[in-house]
Amino acid sequence: MTRRILIVGAGPAGTLLACCLARRGFQVDVYERRPDPRLLDEEESRSINLGLSARGIKALDDIGLMDTLWPLTVPMRGRAIHLPGGGAPFQPYGAHEGEILHSVLRRDLITTLIDHAEAQPGVSFHFRHRLVDLDREAAAVHLAEEGTGAALTVRGDAVIGADGAFSQVRARMQHGLRVDHHQEFLEWGYKELTIPADDGSARTRLEALHVWPGEDALIVAHPNRDNSLTGTLFLPVERFEEIADPEEFFRARFPDAIGLMPHLAKEYAEHPVGHLVSIRTSPWHYRDRVALIGDACHAVYPFYGQGMNASLEDCTVLDRCLGAHPDDLGRAFAEYQRLRKPHTDVLDELSKQNFVELRDRLRSPFHLARKKADLLLARLLPGRWVPLYTMISHTTTPYADALARARRQDAILRWAGVATGAVALAAVRRSTRKGGPRC
Amino acid sequence: MTRRILIVGAGPAGTLLACCLARRGFQVDVYERRPDPRLLDEEESRSINLGLSARGIKALDDIGLMDTLWPLTVPMRGRAIHLPGGGAPFQPYGAHEGEILHSVLRRDLITTLIDHAEAQPGVSFHFRHRLVDLDREAAAVHLAEEGTGAALTVRGDAVIGADGAFSQVRARMQHGLRVDHHQEFLEWGYKELTIPADDGSARTRLEALHVWPGEDALIVAHPNRDNSLTGTLFLPVERFEEIADPEEFFRARFPDAIGLMPHLAKEYAEHPVGHLVSIRTSPWHYRDRVALIGDACHAVYPFYGQGMNASLEDCTVLDRCLGAHPDDLGRAFAEYQRLRKPHTDVLDELSKQNFVELRDRLRSPFHLARKKADLLLARLLPGRWVPLYTMISHTTTPYADALARARRQDAILRWAGVATGAVALAAVRRSTRKGGPRC
Repeated sequence: MTRRILIVGAGPAGTLLACCLARRGFQVDVYERRPDPRLLDEEESRSINLGLSARGIKALDDIGLMDTLWPLTVPMRGRAIHLPGGGAPFQPYGAHEGEILHSVLRRDLITTLIDHAEAQPGVSFHFRHRLVDLDREAAAVHLAEEGTGAALTVRGDAVIGADGAFSQVRARMQHGLRVDHHQEFLEWGYKELTIPADDGSARTRLEALHVWPGEDALIVAHPNRDNSLTGTLFLPVERFEEIADPEEFFRARFPDAIGLMPHLAKEYAEHPVGHLVSIRTSPWHYRDRVALIGDACHAVYPFYGQGMNASLEDCTVLDRCLGAHPDDLGRAFAEYQRLRKPHTDVLDELSKQNFVELRDRLRSPFHLARKKADLLLARLLPGRWVPLYTMISHTTTPYADALARARRQDAILRWAGVATGAVALAAVRRSTRKGGPRC
Repeated sequence: MTRRILIVGAGPAGTLLACCLARRGFQVDVYERRPDPRLLDEEESRSINLGLSARGIKALDDIGLMDTLWPLTVPMRGRAIHLPGGGAPFQPYGAHEGEILHSVLRRDLITTLIDHAEAQPGVSFHFRHRLVDLDREAAAVHLAEEGTGAALTVRGDAVIGADGAFSQVRARMQHGLRVDHHQEFLEWGYKELTIPADDGSARTRLEALHVWPGEDALIVAHPNRDNSLTGTLFLPVERFEEIADPEEFFRARFPDAIGLMPHLAKEYAEHPVGHLVSIRTSPWHYRDRVALIGDACHAVYPFYGQGMNASLEDCTVLDRCLGAHPDDLGRAFAEYQRLRKPHTDVLDELSKQNFVELRDRLRSPFHLARKKADLLLARLLPGRWVPLYTMISHTTTPYADALARARRQDAILRWAGVATGAVALAAVRRSTRKGGPRC
């Protein structure tokens, strides 16, 4: 008998998983609270853009989707760091050709994914269906149709919660269990501001992620295919309201950005303040009945650009566990958490650290020199010296393994520093002693 | 007009706060899900015992309750550490007379507190009333009477959540807000086991906290007034089920305890496994409408013996804030969180560390020597050298201030160690050089 999996949430992770499950012969129903994004016009579905990197690419390539997606992406070959005194030095993302990121509109990614998933045998999407309750013992979901309010109960062999950081599936699955849960809101929030194309041509270098670093305010901008860029202004949450005149604030703080943002005042007034949450949680599954993927089990701050990539990679790991235990969903789910959670925990840590890097250290000459040394070593010792950023963004080395290796490399650098210092000191002492007393 | 405060939860913190609020002229209604503990016989209200220390004593003394409570307590002058090879060296709790803890049955404490609170003008208790919902904007609670299920809605000027680690007031107060929440279950659980009196006399030294330390299993026992002791066995959660024959396990692991526990097998089979949770959370209040006290805003592991003492101390701090802002509950609540949370966060950390100490380090000769040195310094430098344990348990120095001072003392000890080492080394070198070559 064909087993049936119910997925709650038709974001990138839920939709990609639907494709993986269909390939394994499951019947898959995906329930999503929002309307079908393919039916919304551009204005209704104001879209953010995402940086697709090696892990996401690998996961999407695995279901044969990258050929369709490549034309929808814009390469980002490095960071353009906008300095307060003017000038925007370019910092390449990698030491090697191909170590680049790819900017893609979330809308383009998700509509491509849904089209692909819907074409698989056994996969059905049900938009505008809100989860009302979960019966974790029965793997059943109670749903309400938006608008009509019509109630619906569906039972499957298992339920997958792919419903984001504030997952209702998680809340109901974990109810009354011994739950470890770490949730933190960043003191900073964000607001989207666009850098439109100027008569069709880009106002600034296109194939880069633009960063205006700063301890009290920070902008990150991704390029789009239409030569515009989508900028995100990060500020301490309470600052957004305090700024009465955003143009004045920008003139003082980001003088070279203001010329790129003709709609600044209007967008600042109209766009909402977004909040950033980090979540680590356990358990990720309930017996063979319910499991979580993506932000539902590990939400991270966006500062490493890995949130969506990690969510897509979850599908690869879960799919592999289902392959290893084809007749035992409970073992597959347990193995999935065991294999995956240590790595997403590390990503949480790295994403927090990268906020500090973007905010405080990106302008530091020491930091820039260290980055250059790392890339130089990577070029001199190809495959043997790999900077942490490269491992996280341009490889599929599991996150915790990448961090462990980076720490070993750091230790070598430190020893090298100590050794160099010792050799230098010995040389100095030798030369001093030549003419001095000997004992 | 008299302002009315609704307290949810009639544990030690909620009940003590009722007394404080009555003194400030509030009308106070306390709602508690369970029956009135004064109406239960001993068997129904199986009671744990608690270690009352300086903070709790101060808070209770503040409402004039200690005179009634003293006769219900048993002094604990130190720890008796049961070693694997037999013998139970005694480690005093403090360097000075009076630096001791007081064991009290939770039932004795709470019934005394409720009697006292109920005698205050304006205080009413409503037992067997379960919180169904909270309207945080209106400071209103929706309740159901246990048994009859009768529904009731009560509106006050503010609601206080004193309903424990899994506070429903907290869940409803924080719903949809930017909530930071850290919740962790310890991998170890516990089971209560009694050391009954032997024909009326104590089977072991009474005026001590008894500890059987161990990396894989741990017992802590508090003395009672009837010459019995209440023991708590701590084990990794999954171990409880694995142990088929508890007597065999005790013979191998705690040979000197088995003779003290004639009902071991029966109690092991009948008593449930308890779980230990640690919670840090924020916010602690919603405008001037809702605030949290006790475990509802900071649950800690029991290994520093401070959980209830900290909850009672919350009342002192909140009461002081209400005194400072008598006409502005919102400011009082905000000030209470600002003043108090840094300290309970530190207690959370210390309680986690003390688990490691009890489990791994208590038997170490180095640790015992360090403890002795600390107490010796405290005797030599009265008031100027205060060990961390003393500050936490025998003073009302705020927790974070105590930790900061202990760290300064540690730094001095380390420097003293380095200095002593350097002097010794210099002496050795001098003595060596006397007969050796000079340069």
